[in-house]
Amino acid sequence: MPDVSPAAASQLSAVLDHVDADFDNSLERLFALLRIKSISADPAFAADCRLAAEHLARDIGSLGFKAEVRPTDGLPAIIARLEAPEPGAPHVLFYGHYDVQPVDPLDLWKRPPFEPVVTDHADGRMIIVARGAEDDKGQLMTFVEACRAWKSVTGKLPINVTFLIEGEEEIGSKNFGPFLKKHKAELAADFIVVCDTGMWDPETPAITTSLRGLVYDEVRIKAANRDLHSGVFGGGAQNPIRVLTKILGALHDDNGRITIPGFYDGVKDLPPDILAQWQKLNLSAETFLKPIGLSVPAGEKDRLLIEQISSRPTCDINGIVGGYTGEGSKTVIAAEASAKVSFRLVEGQDPEKIRAAFRQFVTSRLPADCKAAFTDHAGAPAIALDWGMKPLAAARRALTEEWGRDAVLIGSGASIPIVADFKRTLGLDSLLIGFGLDDDNIHSPNEKYDLRSFHKGIRSWARILAAFTAAPRG
Amino acid sequence: MPDVSPAAASQLSAVLDHVDADFDNSLERLFALLRIKSISADPAFAADCRLAAEHLARDIGSLGFKAEVRPTDGLPAIIARLEAPEPGAPHVLFYGHYDVQPVDPLDLWKRPPFEPVVTDHADGRMIIVARGAEDDKGQLMTFVEACRAWKSVTGKLPINVTFLIEGEEEIGSKNFGPFLKKHKAELAADFIVVCDTGMWDPETPAITTSLRGLVYDEVRIKAANRDLHSGVFGGGAQNPIRVLTKILGALHDDNGRITIPGFYDGVKDLPPDILAQWQKLNLSAETFLKPIGLSVPAGEKDRLLIEQISSRPTCDINGIVGGYTGEGSKTVIAAEASAKVSFRLVEGQDPEKIRAAFRQFVTSRLPADCKAAFTDHAGAPAIALDWGMKPLAAARRALTEEWGRDAVLIGSGASIPIVADFKRTLGLDSLLIGFGLDDDNIHSPNEKYDLRSFHKGIRSWARILAAFTAAPRG
Repeated sequence: MPDVSPAAASQLSAVLDHVDADFDNSLERLFALLRIKSISADPAFAADCRLAAEHLARDIGSLGFKAEVRPTDGLPAIIARLEAPEPGAPHVLFYGHYDVQPVDPLDLWKRPPFEPVVTDHADGRMIIVARGAEDDKGQLMTFVEACRAWKSVTGKLPINVTFLIEGEEEIGSKNFGPFLKKHKAELAADFIVVCDTGMWDPETPAITTSLRGLVYDEVRIKAANRDLHSGVFGGGAQNPIRVLTKILGALHDDNGRITIPGFYDGVKDLPPDILAQWQKLNLSAETFLKPIGLSVPAGEKDRLLIEQISSRPTCDINGIVGGYTGEGSKTVIAAEASAKVSFRLVEGQDPEKIRAAFRQFVTSRLPADCKAAFTDHAGAPAIALDWGMKPLAAARRALTEEWGRDAVLIGSGASIPIVADFKRTLGLDSLLIGFGLDDDNIHSPNEKYDLRSFHKGIRSWARILAAFTAAPRG
Repeated sequence: MPDVSPAAASQLSAVLDHVDADFDNSLERLFALLRIKSISADPAFAADCRLAAEHLARDIGSLGFKAEVRPTDGLPAIIARLEAPEPGAPHVLFYGHYDVQPVDPLDLWKRPPFEPVVTDHADGRMIIVARGAEDDKGQLMTFVEACRAWKSVTGKLPINVTFLIEGEEEIGSKNFGPFLKKHKAELAADFIVVCDTGMWDPETPAITTSLRGLVYDEVRIKAANRDLHSGVFGGGAQNPIRVLTKILGALHDDNGRITIPGFYDGVKDLPPDILAQWQKLNLSAETFLKPIGLSVPAGEKDRLLIEQISSRPTCDINGIVGGYTGEGSKTVIAAEASAKVSFRLVEGQDPEKIRAAFRQFVTSRLPADCKAAFTDHAGAPAIALDWGMKPLAAARRALTEEWGRDAVLIGSGASIPIVADFKRTLGLDSLLIGFGLDDDNIHSPNEKYDLRSFHKGIRSWARILAAFTAAPRG
């Protein structure tokens, strides 16, 4: 089978030239999207989220799609179907998300997070800086711009595409599962393509074939019926911050292992061949941790760093707050304290069992007079994708051509919970390709996307769309 | 010796009648002070603090005092000396503070904290509700109003009084020590009177003869050089909230004992006679903890509750914050996390040794890649007052007359660090008398002062001023 269908191959070169020639406009279109404050976690930005959805639907609509903003039980999603699909051509469902993470702490941003700029990185790379520059506005626009280039040059796309863009990925996609079920018929396709992952390193493209799952829980511990003066009551009254720190401080043992009973049940060691491949990748603390100011891997001491961050389950306290946190001092014993705690899961772990085990861990340690209340923020199992998928081989060849280096197959430590729903609800496999780098500061101040990631990302998709013409059916 | 000098005794009855007749005006004057947002912990309220100082100086000035707002290296203080002191009369230095605690969490206040009202308590008591209603504006105004009544009825005070009012008590009185040294000559007196403590119960007046000391420290733990995505870095990167909770969670053992090495060095058991008196007071969890929604004393298991709250040292985490604490969820590993930790000290403990031991406790537990930075918010040793002071016996008799019950001598769990400075710098003993109740919610939302505390507090001071005429010299 040829790498690309003859018709597509003859057009690809002109399409790539168009990508290069039109790149400044691509950037302007990305900036317009980045300026919209579509923070899904904070209800204060609900109108901005809707604005982002409408903006994207309008833009995708201009490429020959019937693009509609559709309600969910939360923030709206977009479904965009081709007005004139090619009968018999391969059909890809592209998934991305327009919502972004909150921006706090705002004072650590060098520039306002919703005023995108292209600037020099310290090492001379040109970067796009804004909240969402990478995750996921920059990434999803690489695919949109590749479609636009094909449309501009040839008048149509080389394969059939449906867009599915959601607005609650950063808060667990709670309303998206039901949405998929409801619109299943419209979302028929051969397989799914997602652009929300990273490269192996700045020179080496990657396809992600496993994703960790996620359980995100919030615990609030209450003791007295009001805040107390620590002089009057100190020593006699239970302090919920003391209780919370004692419980959370016991979540890891001295070897970095998580102490919740049953937490590792069902977790398997890597198959020897994968472990051997990963050992060859030779991820060192020097490479991975030094750029973020660290030097010693903090996970299980008897595991490789690459295992700690991609194939082993984790527990992180993502936020904690209680008592007086303002300027100066206040001698208060707070009535309550709370923490947000999340777990990255691997194959074999059941999210709801892990959540129950965590809650049991907390409640079994509560002293007299304390109550714990929990809030479920997200839960999704880990995903292992099919390494044998035909489009995977096609995409891998296209990536290798664009970047001049073999694309590698990797496991990601992050979670894209919706990928499990795609399989469960739509019966479709997903292909995860993205151009993010480890130093993109996603979820952090000064999020960036390399200008090269954006440019070569568009070119990569232009090639992959052509490659799919010869590898039609998953 | 008579209880009161003959001249004062003959006038006291008229003064007490005046207190009753003028009480509505006393309340109005207290309200005017309560409306000023003099929060010392937050620099945003510095102008309000100055306003409170000027307001009080004007008011005290109207009672025949040369009252001046004086600069310190922080918020200003007030010194007010009589324009026409009586040669040879006993001379009292009255100390109070015009600053108040922050008001957060604001949403738990039933009414705006700086809009004082008199309202019905659930049990039928009438209460004054506002930040500072008790601590210390309500309390200090009992003394001011008693002076006003004497001045109105007799044209002068029965003894000589100097006022010393500061504005940084709630943040550790850091600049007040040097201020005392600088103005030592103006502050000459026979002894000091402080109105910032409580009654034993709503019917039983009390004089406080011991105070716990205070060390207040803030610790900030830093790991990575920026916030991280918990999917990309989770498992490999150190999480400062995990480190902070592990360290703080180890501060107490399962018996409520503080685990910092050397913490209890120098701490003595109560003398058997005092222990016997306290056992007779029979403070129960039912009485003390039930009103705040608790039932089991949280301190050292082998100590009486009254010891836990007044004669034993404590450790409380007063505030903690790190990572994402907003609505919903964010999968972040924070770059830093911090906590405010305070210790109530008893006789025999050196504040600076305790602070150093705490910091050593933290730094010795830091894993690789973590740094701890500390901020010193306050430090003062415990105080034990002289039970044999003559004015103490005089005040005790006056209190017993006003309340119809023997005034008791108690130890307070709270700290008024400046009392140690009074002894050290001015060479003066302090007499601690106040009318606060355990349910006053000081330092908490919905702070209140019983209307009866305010009214009978004024009457108590009117009597005590008369009693001092016959017990002149400490």
